Amino acid sequence: MFYGIGVGVGSSDAVTKYGIDVLQKLDVLYVPTAKSADSFSVAHEIVRGYLKESTLIKDRHFPMNYNTKELQNAWNNIASEIESDVLKGKNVGFVTIGDPMVYSTYIYLLRILKNKVKVVTIPGITSFLDIASKNNFPLVEGEDALVVVPATMGLEKIKQYVKNENSIVLMKVYKNFDEIINLLLEEKLEKHSIVVSNSSKNEEKVYADIKSIKKEDVSYFTTILINKKWEI
Amino acid sequence: MFYGIGVGVGSSDAVTKYGIDVLQKLDVLYVPTAKSADSFSVAHEIVRGYLKESTLIKDRHFPMNYNTKELQNAWNNIASEIESDVLKGKNVGFVTIGDPMVYSTYIYLLRILKNKVKVVTIPGITSFLDIASKNNFPLVEGEDALVVVPATMGLEKIKQYVKNENSIVLMKVYKNFDEIINLLLEEKLEKHSIVVSNSSKNEEKVYADIKSIKKEDVSYFTTILINKKWEI
Repeated sequence: MFYGIGVGVGSSDAVTKYGIDVLQKLDVLYVPTAKSADSFSVAHEIVRGYLKESTLIKDRHFPMNYNTKELQNAWNNIASEIESDVLKGKNVGFVTIGDPMVYSTYIYLLRILKNKVKVVTIPGITSFLDIASKNNFPLVEGEDALVVVPATMGLEKIKQYVKNENSIVLMKVYKNFDEIINLLLEEKLEKHSIVVSNSSKNEEKVYADIKSIKKEDVSYFTTILINKKWEI
Repeated sequence: MFYGIGVGVGSSDAVTKYGIDVLQKLDVLYVPTAKSADSFSVAHEIVRGYLKESTLIKDRHFPMNYNTKELQNAWNNIASEIESDVLKGKNVGFVTIGDPMVYSTYIYLLRILKNKVKVVTIPGITSFLDIASKNNFPLVEGEDALVVVPATMGLEKIKQYVKNENSIVLMKVYKNFDEIINLLLEEKLEKHSIVVSNSSKNEEKVYADIKSIKKEDVSYFTTILINKKWEI
């Protein structure tokens, strides 16, 4: 059996009971590593306390250049390795920060493996759910839509969402940080937004007063929650 | 201290480690009951195994007619009760199915209590995250937006989302079920959608072939996941 396990963000407290039960019975655990060593240690740090001593940890590096042949090869290789471990009768896991079905690289792996081995996916707390609860900032109510937007998409589309929707999550706000802060001020959303830089890391900073933030203060991992029906 | 605890959906396995730790130390737990007895038993059933024997359970009924004076009074009354329990030095909890910050009645309570007592909110797995993982159906990838839409809003707005977005979650699809299924067929989304009726309940049904579903087969609690970049 192959398990894709969402472990939430920040700490081992965010893992669900279901996730803990599965982690405890794994023979092999694959941990993806990104460009920085940091990302490996975060996922590993979250789950290490739940693993049995005999669990074999396989950390595997994935290049960050999307859709290239190099990336495709890396995924095909890890998928073959996993398939081979599963066919040997082992309980094999793959951990993913946040939720496996929301902007996760696990989805590439699932696409390759779904018709080859039996796959069980376990949901996790996404970063935006974590940020909302931690700051007592509700995301959405009633008949409104909730729109989660990677701010790496073009500014014009972001403007449409911010103008037309009541509940918006902007993720990875960095490149166009100044333009987005100006947009929020134009739309008079100061009292309806919070900005969180480096969520769930040691350097986490929360800004409730968006006028006071400068781009040099925030990291690439910056999230903005907007709820026009909630006042801070 | 007052704790708002998201307990996920379906079973006690969906509760996070953080949620379990808090449930175990509660002196008082408020459990909201809706129009049917069912909803009480679901939340209570999920958490009962985590509570200490001495925890006092207070189930409180909330009328379902939105924005009426009756509903407002019900919330004000429970908020006063909670405030009084907290001021007596008790650890007080309120459970909510799914996540407390996403379409939860807990948000009404938070609005009243946030400036009166110290509030800690604990995130939970939402129903759409649970459905996606359970069915190995990814929600969103890359630079796409994820749009979560209560289908109780007008059909014209729903059409815009379904036409313009790649990743859409339609919740509470019932009243306009036939129109929405027709829309999915028109947009050639048969291979990119799943329909789940009564998610996480005993009567749960998953339909991958949307052409075969009839309105009389599904419940009010029907969710449709659409991902134009995923093929079932």
